[in-house]
Amino acid sequence: MTRLRVGIAGLGTVGRGVVKLFADGASRLNEKMQLVAVSARNAGQDRGVDLTPYRWFDDPVALAADPSVDVFVELIGGADGAAKVAVETALARGAHVVTANKALVALHGAHLVERSERTGAKLLFEAAVGGGVPMVKALKESVAGSRASSVAGILNGTCNYILTEMENSGRSFEAVLTEAQAMGYAEADPTTDVGGFDAAHKLTILSAIAFGTRPDYGHVQIQGIERVTLTDIRLAGKLGYRIKLIAKGALADGAVEMHVRPALLSYDHPLANVSGSLNALVVDAEPSGQLTFIGRGAGEGPTAASVASDLIDLAEGRAGFAFGKPLAQLAEAPRGSPTERGRYYLRLMVQDRPGVVAAISDRLAHEEISIESFLQMPVHGGPAVPIVLTTQTCARPRMELAVRAIEALDVCAEPPLLMPVEHSGARWGRS
Amino acid sequence: MTRLRVGIAGLGTVGRGVVKLFADGASRLNEKMQLVAVSARNAGQDRGVDLTPYRWFDDPVALAADPSVDVFVELIGGADGAAKVAVETALARGAHVVTANKALVALHGAHLVERSERTGAKLLFEAAVGGGVPMVKALKESVAGSRASSVAGILNGTCNYILTEMENSGRSFEAVLTEAQAMGYAEADPTTDVGGFDAAHKLTILSAIAFGTRPDYGHVQIQGIERVTLTDIRLAGKLGYRIKLIAKGALADGAVEMHVRPALLSYDHPLANVSGSLNALVVDAEPSGQLTFIGRGAGEGPTAASVASDLIDLAEGRAGFAFGKPLAQLAEAPRGSPTERGRYYLRLMVQDRPGVVAAISDRLAHEEISIESFLQMPVHGGPAVPIVLTTQTCARPRMELAVRAIEALDVCAEPPLLMPVEHSGARWGRS
Repeated sequence: MTRLRVGIAGLGTVGRGVVKLFADGASRLNEKMQLVAVSARNAGQDRGVDLTPYRWFDDPVALAADPSVDVFVELIGGADGAAKVAVETALARGAHVVTANKALVALHGAHLVERSERTGAKLLFEAAVGGGVPMVKALKESVAGSRASSVAGILNGTCNYILTEMENSGRSFEAVLTEAQAMGYAEADPTTDVGGFDAAHKLTILSAIAFGTRPDYGHVQIQGIERVTLTDIRLAGKLGYRIKLIAKGALADGAVEMHVRPALLSYDHPLANVSGSLNALVVDAEPSGQLTFIGRGAGEGPTAASVASDLIDLAEGRAGFAFGKPLAQLAEAPRGSPTERGRYYLRLMVQDRPGVVAAISDRLAHEEISIESFLQMPVHGGPAVPIVLTTQTCARPRMELAVRAIEALDVCAEPPLLMPVEHSGARWGRS
Repeated sequence: MTRLRVGIAGLGTVGRGVVKLFADGASRLNEKMQLVAVSARNAGQDRGVDLTPYRWFDDPVALAADPSVDVFVELIGGADGAAKVAVETALARGAHVVTANKALVALHGAHLVERSERTGAKLLFEAAVGGGVPMVKALKESVAGSRASSVAGILNGTCNYILTEMENSGRSFEAVLTEAQAMGYAEADPTTDVGGFDAAHKLTILSAIAFGTRPDYGHVQIQGIERVTLTDIRLAGKLGYRIKLIAKGALADGAVEMHVRPALLSYDHPLANVSGSLNALVVDAEPSGQLTFIGRGAGEGPTAASVASDLIDLAEGRAGFAFGKPLAQLAEAPRGSPTERGRYYLRLMVQDRPGVVAAISDRLAHEEISIESFLQMPVHGGPAVPIVLTTQTCARPRMELAVRAIEALDVCAEPPLLMPVEHSGARWGRS
């Protein structure tokens, strides 16, 4: 059997990690394939790995087009530009592609699968979601005998690190973010992470596989963690909840709903204790029951290990359809607008004057929303005091009407923050 | 493409679950294969599923031998007898085998793989370990690009249920076991479960895959949960630990060590909050990092879903080597005896008389073992009082010498109970 010849484009953290795995003589990678070529922007830069055994390409598209490469590993990043052109080029000539590029797969997944199906090339992207955690394979293959009803995950390590640090150290969002940037855990422009967009890319991919639909990034409703304050974390804690950025896709009334948003989890929720930069996924499926996967969501080693597992699947002939089914069998994600029902957390910053609490209660009662818990804490200094409440189960549209009515009272010092309370949904405990 | 023809032997809980999946027209199983034959002991028994569409065999071996069956699903159970003969028969004629039989695979795995390699038949057993949790596939394929250094799991739902109930309800081992038997959670003869043997079968399989060695059940050191008392659970709790039956395989000094034994886990250990009948596995590997998998470890639905995922892998051409590698590449598990080092929990039931504590401390000091915590609680009634202690890190042989010296003091009302304190080993938290 001839060994597959691999070319890697992009020698950042993950790319270097994959080169190191090839350089490790004992790795299983070397039994089945060999690294023959690499590409990056700057040939002269010292990357701490010996690149002399491999052909150098300044242009990733030229590497992707080279007939001496059987598998093109795309680790450049970005939904468009060189990454997309290079992947298209490889697939068009029948070369397999392994990529860690979640934005590319989330935004152009169906288009790329169409290209790959024309030539019979495989497209694999375990490393695009969950770092070292095999979320893609679990959904494609292990849950294949079941039907998933929801996937919910902590898919962005930066946000989870920030929220965990805020809770543990009692520092503000801004202070923790600044520190995370200094330590390299967060980008100089943190919008993709803290705005929820990175998690939304990953959720798009997981939902497509779980529900057998085309990836549909435009349908994800996205709310970031920028407005979550230390007050929210503390008061949620007093009510028995922890705040996490949750990416969740669910089948509801035949439609696929996808949300990325900060949410309150009770401490017994399977995602509540996933701390720091860890990633995790909870899949609800029948008849397999609830499954939870936890591990390191980013970094050189974990992500390189996921790239390697895709390469070994290719070499051993196990690589299947990119999203678990042929493109023709992936449904358009039905864009229904089922009425979300649930429990909610509402935080208000109000002027402390008589009648405010009564007025807020009245606006909720008007929408027939029952309050489950109510917390007002004394504040020293500042014109506004925080009031937080959680509701019993109600319809989201009515909750939003109530929030607008409360805003119209003209007592709010800043816009209210509304977050869902996630129920654990779990057969968690005895079987 | 002709559809694979499947025969199922054994129509207990799991067998019925698989028949139901085939009967569900929307299941992906039916796209690629069809159920053609079934076998069980009693043809007349009502099993709540319509068996009339399938050929009936009184003899599972005859079903396994029948040329109209491409895939033989063995759900009879038992390491020997009809299950073994039937699986051998199917493999010998080149029919693939899917089984949930952990005892068979643990005790005769290498022998069966040899048979399967002769004819090219595949042997798959995802359902043998962890119920609905894809532990086998995760180790075989997802961790393939990494090197595992340890696997540690909660692999027996009955033991985990009993320990969880003892802690939550404050009842004795015997009381909870009796209730579990009445509810069908535990067998009339519970030895296989509470004695740790079932977990040892599963650990044998996982260790073989994780470390690339032949399955070696005889090398597992096994201690059950029968001697864990409510006193242990309560006093361990006061010291900050929870008691779980842990099945652990680890590479140490080039040898594979396998233990099944009750152990103390601190509350932040990834397995500490896996409660009730759930199963879980923690894999430490490089460079993927620590991975945790949690889900339902038994029952009709989860186990049938794992059988189904194996069947779909077969139908889609993804089924690989039984243990991840060809038999010739599986090493004999090196049976070194590395000196285990760790922290230990020791519970003594002693006669309450002056000088006992000093004598115990002295015997530990003689082996240069430092005490980390010491707890003696007042007891109302009974001639013996419990004393528990945890040690700092020490060598197990010296700990055992100390225990024997303490026993020789002739103050112990019953044999001491020694359990390891598992460290979380985790890059658990920030990356």
